Amino acid sequence: MSTDPSSIPPVTLAPALLSELRAVVGPANLLTEDADRLAYGIDGTWVERLPQVVILPATEAEVAKIVKIAARVGIAITPRGNASGLSGGALPRAGIALALTRMNRIIEISRDDQVAVVEPGVITGELQRAVERIGLFYPPDPSSLSVSAIGGNIAENAGGARCLKYGVTGDYVMALRVVLPSGAVIRTGGRTVKNVTGYNLRALFVGSEGTLGIVTQATLRLLPKPRHTLTCAAHFMDIEAAAHATTAMLLSGIIPTTIELMDRTTIDCVEALLHLGLPNDTAALLLISVDGNHLDAVTDDLATLAEICQTTGATQVQRADTPEEAARLWQARRSVAPALARRRPNKLGEDIAVPRSQIPAMVRAVRAIAAEYQLLIPLYGHAGDGNLHPNILCDRRDAEEMTRVRGAAAAIFAAAVALGGTLSGEHGIGLLKKEFLESDLGPDQIALMPAIKATIDPTGIFNPGKIFPTGTAEWE
Amino acid sequence: MSTDPSSIPPVTLAPALLSELRAVVGPANLLTEDADRLAYGIDGTWVERLPQVVILPATEAEVAKIVKIAARVGIAITPRGNASGLSGGALPRAGIALALTRMNRIIEISRDDQVAVVEPGVITGELQRAVERIGLFYPPDPSSLSVSAIGGNIAENAGGARCLKYGVTGDYVMALRVVLPSGAVIRTGGRTVKNVTGYNLRALFVGSEGTLGIVTQATLRLLPKPRHTLTCAAHFMDIEAAAHATTAMLLSGIIPTTIELMDRTTIDCVEALLHLGLPNDTAALLLISVDGNHLDAVTDDLATLAEICQTTGATQVQRADTPEEAARLWQARRSVAPALARRRPNKLGEDIAVPRSQIPAMVRAVRAIAAEYQLLIPLYGHAGDGNLHPNILCDRRDAEEMTRVRGAAAAIFAAAVALGGTLSGEHGIGLLKKEFLESDLGPDQIALMPAIKATIDPTGIFNPGKIFPTGTAEWE
Repeated sequence: MSTDPSSIPPVTLAPALLSELRAVVGPANLLTEDADRLAYGIDGTWVERLPQVVILPATEAEVAKIVKIAARVGIAITPRGNASGLSGGALPRAGIALALTRMNRIIEISRDDQVAVVEPGVITGELQRAVERIGLFYPPDPSSLSVSAIGGNIAENAGGARCLKYGVTGDYVMALRVVLPSGAVIRTGGRTVKNVTGYNLRALFVGSEGTLGIVTQATLRLLPKPRHTLTCAAHFMDIEAAAHATTAMLLSGIIPTTIELMDRTTIDCVEALLHLGLPNDTAALLLISVDGNHLDAVTDDLATLAEICQTTGATQVQRADTPEEAARLWQARRSVAPALARRRPNKLGEDIAVPRSQIPAMVRAVRAIAAEYQLLIPLYGHAGDGNLHPNILCDRRDAEEMTRVRGAAAAIFAAAVALGGTLSGEHGIGLLKKEFLESDLGPDQIALMPAIKATIDPTGIFNPGKIFPTGTAEWE
Repeated sequence: MSTDPSSIPPVTLAPALLSELRAVVGPANLLTEDADRLAYGIDGTWVERLPQVVILPATEAEVAKIVKIAARVGIAITPRGNASGLSGGALPRAGIALALTRMNRIIEISRDDQVAVVEPGVITGELQRAVERIGLFYPPDPSSLSVSAIGGNIAENAGGARCLKYGVTGDYVMALRVVLPSGAVIRTGGRTVKNVTGYNLRALFVGSEGTLGIVTQATLRLLPKPRHTLTCAAHFMDIEAAAHATTAMLLSGIIPTTIELMDRTTIDCVEALLHLGLPNDTAALLLISVDGNHLDAVTDDLATLAEICQTTGATQVQRADTPEEAARLWQARRSVAPALARRRPNKLGEDIAVPRSQIPAMVRAVRAIAAEYQLLIPLYGHAGDGNLHPNILCDRRDAEEMTRVRGAAAAIFAAAVALGGTLSGEHGIGLLKKEFLESDLGPDQIALMPAIKATIDPTGIFNPGKIFPTGTAEWE
């Protein structure tokens, strides 16, 4: 937090309005102290915004009441889960920060229907553990899963490593209960695997970053848990060789569960943080895993992928022979973001995605951009689905460096789009990428999206200023 | 066709307008003869509607030009592929029937990116064969796949037998090019596996039944083709036992590729048509298949599922030992709709879906409704994903019987919704089910959908009168 406490503007909401809101949630769940407003004004980025008031509802009915009051007086509402987001989507530009963390019940896990019904504040990792206890499986696994909430995952359509085989959060959302900007509550989707009754509003709300509705309940599809997962680490002397190995594995006919990439700088940072004994003579590491119910088949598939790595330039492929060894490798991968954060004062984490054939070209482009802008840009991410996270390390206090950081970020976006890719694979657009939206989507689609927003939220009270270009870059 | 040719109203479009439209597509591709208007006024249902004019564009630019003309003069456009739809979605209530059958090129199949880029008129089965020739796989397999077009599959978000394991058409749509009611063309989605850049308009267009846009190109995700598929047929003396076996198999931890149900009447009708030697002493048949790359694993999974059937009441489980034997079983399944059509003059095919735990209850409900309304309602469908097709056999000339048919259909919808299910799993709402929409979705969601329609299509020229209740049942 860099905000000077003495510079915090006071709450300007009328006392009668605060009383009315307080009556909905109880005094303990409406916060106006500066420290609370600051705490609910940050997320996983370096950007800070200040809400007028923080409200923590406990039920859908409370959410609907707050929304109705806000709609009546025209005050903005920005919903947030645990605010681990990486694009600024949960930052309140003003008005109410609506924290859904108290709505954290797992309402039901049905083995018969293979669904879980949850409130938005449930932590993703807790849901995974709960369903796995009865032999089921919730595949989406954002790296933030130990802290991120399902509601936030839905708002950003979060991905993760296993999405290569299993798809993203939205692929598991069967039904949502949503509070609309009018305060009306709808249920969209249902508990059936197939459903073509009317428009797919469920998919419209997923990934809409809190701009269309507030999710108060989600029905999530579950799978049977695969009995076996095997992991190996392939070492390469050259990051482009790792990228080529990735495309070769994807052509093998096997669908790996994960192919995760970490470059040299990323490995160094993780090793400095965790001392896991990661190799110190490797330019890039791929973490490859496969899963299934038949151990022989899984073993065979992993061996085939290991062979492909060896024929495409791996200097070494180490199979994790114990669950502990696999856990150690995954701990390394999940610790990348905090580890990089220690290397320099700040980092700007990008999230571009490219078609799978363009993974080597994108890796080359990032290296060229790092050289051109003279920046340290460690590269890691979900190589198997073409979703890479170049992280630009920097110091925000250095104005000259920040000019280069912005130039490099724009160049990375342009390179991804030129390769047939997109600005964001799994983090969303939020505040930080909105000025680049048209470069990806083109003018006609850009026109349609705010029109849909205006239809659902005519007064614009839900999470204003996000996703769509406003003419003002908000990097700070 | 029951329409009396002498009763066909003449084309009332102004000659100048017809000339303008004709100039876009060439004289051979604008049809105004009565026979043509009749031929493009039917689909897979018994309902008939008459377009003023039939237009067959060859390119996206032609589609956009026609839409611009239609928007200017305010004439309706109803897009259609091969019109095998089962809910009346492609029936032109007036105006232009826009047949996309000439836009039937497979533009690209990329092995490296595992995508196919196709025009909307490509036949689903032809796409499947084309991608399988290079080791790839397009899983969605509506029973109509030998005639239905990809554009229609996208418009209705078509399903099929393999959707139990692989999901529906929409799960494979990565990007669309769409002509909007303004004539503007947008590209939504992209060639990346993950994409959270802006709202998911792609998913909004999928299943929108031609009411929001006209798809002119689709980029479809492909998978590696599984090396082995094994099929068995399980015989039951009681259809409810077959339903219970289905739920038991779904709890086994195995994800079958298909679990298809055919009841006694369905088997009889298929046998009468094809003489395949199907059993004549069985109340219900389940067609079960599993696939994968490892023959041992696939064999083992099929054996496990067969065992479950035996312990839940199957009198016999026959494994198809040759590809020919499996093909014969699948031919039986794919021939159900035409076979039932021969049993009585007409049939009303429903498409409800229920949560997987409710499959036995839904089977019981359909049997009770058939008894109550004294109708023959053969039951078949995708038991594994809870998407069942009760087909009400009838004679449309019998007014008294048709009253019972409508009562039974309404009762089937009500039973599905009461069990937590939905009106339509894969056929869409179209004309035939629109008056039941609110019973499934509730008033608030119903209000939102037409508002979105009005935002994208303010003058309502795209496929008017579909999906949303108009206060007039259109069963005829």
